[in-house]
Amino acid sequence: MSNQIRVTVWNEFRHEKSNDAVKSLYPNGMHVTIGEALKKNSDISVRYATLDEPEHGLTQAVVDSTDVLIWWGHCAHDEVSDEIVKRVQKRILEGMGLIVLHSGHFSKIFKAMLGTHCSLKWREVAEKERLWNIEPGHPITEGIGEYIELPNTEMYGERFDIPTPDKLIFISWFEGGEVFRSGCCWERGHGRIFYFRPGHETYPIFHNEQIQRVLVNAVRWAKPRVFMEHSAPNTQPLEKLSEKKVQFGKAGVAQNTDGSNK
Amino acid sequence: MSNQIRVTVWNEFRHEKSNDAVKSLYPNGMHVTIGEALKKNSDISVRYATLDEPEHGLTQAVVDSTDVLIWWGHCAHDEVSDEIVKRVQKRILEGMGLIVLHSGHFSKIFKAMLGTHCSLKWREVAEKERLWNIEPGHPITEGIGEYIELPNTEMYGERFDIPTPDKLIFISWFEGGEVFRSGCCWERGHGRIFYFRPGHETYPIFHNEQIQRVLVNAVRWAKPRVFMEHSAPNTQPLEKLSEKKVQFGKAGVAQNTDGSNK
Amino acid sequence: MSNQIRVTVWNEFRHEKSNDAVKSLYPNGMHVTIGEALKKNSDISVRYATLDEPEHGLTQAVVDSTDVLIWWGHCAHDEVSDEIVKRVQKRILEGMGLIVLHSGHFSKIFKAMLGTHCSLKWREVAEKERLWNIEPGHPITEGIGEYIELPNTEMYGERFDIPTPDKLIFISWFEGGEVFRSGCCWERGHGRIFYFRPGHETYPIFHNEQIQRVLVNAVRWAKPRVFMEHSAPNTQPLEKLSEKKVQFGKAGVAQNTDGSNK
Amino acid sequence: MSNQIRVTVWNEFRHEKSNDAVKSLYPNGMHVTIGEALKKNSDISVRYATLDEPEHGLTQAVVDSTDVLIWWGHCAHDEVSDEIVKRVQKRILEGMGLIVLHSGHFSKIFKAMLGTHCSLKWREVAEKERLWNIEPGHPITEGIGEYIELPNTEMYGERFDIPTPDKLIFISWFEGGEVFRSGCCWERGHGRIFYFRPGHETYPIFHNEQIQRVLVNAVRWAKPRVFMEHSAPNTQPLEKLSEKKVQFGKAGVAQNTDGSNK
Repeated sequence: MSNQIRVTVWNEFRHEKSNDAVKSLYPNGMHVTIGEALKKNSDISVRYATLDEPEHGLTQAVVDSTDVLIWWGHCAHDEVSDEIVKRVQKRILEGMGLIVLHSGHFSKIFKAMLGTHCSLKWREVAEKERLWNIEPGHPITEGIGEYIELPNTEMYGERFDIPTPDKLIFISWFEGGEVFRSGCCWERGHGRIFYFRPGHETYPIFHNEQIQRVLVNAVRWAKPRVFMEHSAPNTQPLEKLSEKKVQFGKAGVAQNTDGSNK
Repeated sequence: MSNQIRVTVWNEFRHEKSNDAVKSLYPNGMHVTIGEALKKNSDISVRYATLDEPEHGLTQAVVDSTDVLIWWGHCAHDEVSDEIVKRVQKRILEGMGLIVLHSGHFSKIFKAMLGTHCSLKWREVAEKERLWNIEPGHPITEGIGEYIELPNTEMYGERFDIPTPDKLIFISWFEGGEVFRSGCCWERGHGRIFYFRPGHETYPIFHNEQIQRVLVNAVRWAKPRVFMEHSAPNTQPLEKLSEKKVQFGKAGVAQNTDGSNK
Repeated sequence: MSNQIRVTVWNEFRHEKSNDAVKSLYPNGMHVTIGEALKKNSDISVRYATLDEPEHGLTQAVVDSTDVLIWWGHCAHDEVSDEIVKRVQKRILEGMGLIVLHSGHFSKIFKAMLGTHCSLKWREVAEKERLWNIEPGHPITEGIGEYIELPNTEMYGERFDIPTPDKLIFISWFEGGEVFRSGCCWERGHGRIFYFRPGHETYPIFHNEQIQRVLVNAVRWAKPRVFMEHSAPNTQPLEKLSEKKVQFGKAGVAQNTDGSNK
Repeated sequence: MSNQIRVTVWNEFRHEKSNDAVKSLYPNGMHVTIGEALKKNSDISVRYATLDEPEHGLTQAVVDSTDVLIWWGHCAHDEVSDEIVKRVQKRILEGMGLIVLHSGHFSKIFKAMLGTHCSLKWREVAEKERLWNIEPGHPITEGIGEYIELPNTEMYGERFDIPTPDKLIFISWFEGGEVFRSGCCWERGHGRIFYFRPGHETYPIFHNEQIQRVLVNAVRWAKPRVFMEHSAPNTQPLEKLSEKKVQFGKAGVAQNTDGSNK
């Protein structure tokens, strides 16, 4: 692992090209706004990757040299190739961090990591949101205070179809009457996953300093503690076994779903 | 939901046809041995499904009328079609129970539900295993006592690459020096999942009365509490909103990965 | 265990005697209103116990014949004797269920079971509360629908200082802008614990049919699966040990904090 | 928080004075052996406290300037004053780390933090133990490898009566046939708790380099992320409330069990 945390910010990067309102908020794409905020911290280095690049910008070389991957997608989840999703999933299980933003809840990679539909209620009427910090001792909430208030957001409401988070750190209150688990942490394999709700493309969410602070904190929390490849070794006994009087048939050959024999 | 718990026992059913040792232990297939044990309980009804049937025996009609699916696979995980895996996964998230046995740890459905590699160490030298019951108050261990002892088993050793179980109920001790999380419970969507380690095809594990008792208990634990379809509704505010002074652009259309718009 | 679930509803029972507003809502005490609602179900039997009775009504005989204990307290937590708290805690660890209501969050028994301060923000201005059901498949939410709306409640706000619940099933939205984890499940020893937020003495909360439904469901969920006494046995090896060449000194005698030697 | 992690190693320190075998292994007490190992790391500073000192060496000033408290006790748990236990518990909930060793499972502080009996099976026949590292990516297992092997230990066997750990990182295999959850992590309040099984006084466990490595790692993991005092504030609404047409009685005054009004 390098001295800096090597972040790759992945963005679908479609709305910013087709929608004038989004373009005016994020002229270079949301990924660049996010990346500029991260880069202000000397322990973080940033690269970008977007859907329409070859291999969505997530070549094996890029994935292999990424410590934390940030993911924003919305209208083109299906255009992400299954092969790239598998590549990213494998790397997360080996230790890479994953931060999924807002509408990324329906991305292939998030659903593959969690195994659920990740569905939720939603509404877009520019209502107020207040994210309550329920874990003020957690590294991701460092410097945030009691809550984050966003004057205008898209609403996401429960039930959010996710596995129970290992740690729930933000719960949102919405002006229209709903609540939402807005900051959720999981570990899968050797990797850490953080879902963070805010971030709709038609609001200047990623320009908000508290939101940027959460992202910086989340990068530091999600950085790899180890990188270990998946293996299923046939091992020798560590203890002397008693003599076996029974005679059993030779077993069949097992198969791993990646094509290798176990 | 019917009065009885409608169990479908799915078996790869290959070793029993090609390997004389396995055939002598399970002449009609492991699924039938398991099913006969379950059927002794008047609250459980049993059907069978196997890999080489059309749609692997898991037609939409079968899946839709199954309360708990039991899964055993080993040498042909890759031959299970992705479409059937998605069908089963959707039904589990809606409420169906899933019980995965032994080498099913590498099945497509188990890996899809958990999001991890589910890899482990292994060894086949007919050694002794003792499954310690660490949750004597859990419904799945009812009537089991302190432990289950199996004189001859294949060994599975840690690290088992799974998400932290919601509840860990059995830990195995192996003669050769390893340990393993052998009974693991999760909830995903509205469905319950139980992984149970014992069950290698070359040993008479599924004839063991304690193992059969665990399976009966697990069926009762995993039975659906509810069946609810996945949805992501656009909802109306429940509270009167303040007037919005800002004007935001119209957002893009979101896409769910099943092709529907959110 | 008897055929019926034997519930004891414990109430501090002070406000109802000293405060006319509370008395008019609950002339016989909140415990009786709760008990009457439970008794409508043929699988539940109900007894009452209150602070000012000898041993707070929780004699050893009462505790030993209780399956689920419901607890409401507010202004006199300190008057509950430590000895009774230990008696109740021991019984919960052996298998008895515990349901803690509203201001019972600061009761000695709740804090002893969880190990934390159980502190929270609060405000009493008769504001609206909406409890979102985030686990529609959980037995405690059966028949509840998407949410429970209470027109007037005391507010409890995060951070609620509790261990992460095994399962979080209700999150509250408050008119004044806060959120709260209002339905929380834990297991401790062999017993189950449910905390349910609503229930302030100056509002008719326990007359609400949805609230009563949650209490009935919670009683059924929290009923004992087993009763097992605490023990720390000195056991014999199950396997033949290798010869020990080293000679170690005889160890000291260990002491359990209940006075017995381990 | 200072630059160094301020560790206080607490030891009952009785066996080392009365038992020659223990004295020969730990002439200055186990706490000093542990402390010497920690001190080799420049980010850690060490102090000691023992049972027979005034206030058990845990004065308010000591507790207030401790980042991580290590606890070893065995034959005199009952002699620890309840007042000191409350002082320590309060500090853990505010952010201090706690590391409980071996027979400390029955200490007042561990039981107070967890709320359970913390009972287990045990046997002292100098048998072999192998601690399997099931979380190779966790900070506490850094540099440990697949397992730790101890040639002679006291055995602790399941069922260990604890709340399900937030993270289980070591599972022990014992020569005599048992298993045990030997490395367990929890969070309570703002503090972190680690239980580590090895450490019987009649074996040279705390001289083992891998055990020392785990303790150094655990200190770094358990160091405070924040120190926050407990509070239960009465707060003002953040949103404008609708007019309340109902008139409710004034509520009673709530009481916190530490004597303060809520």
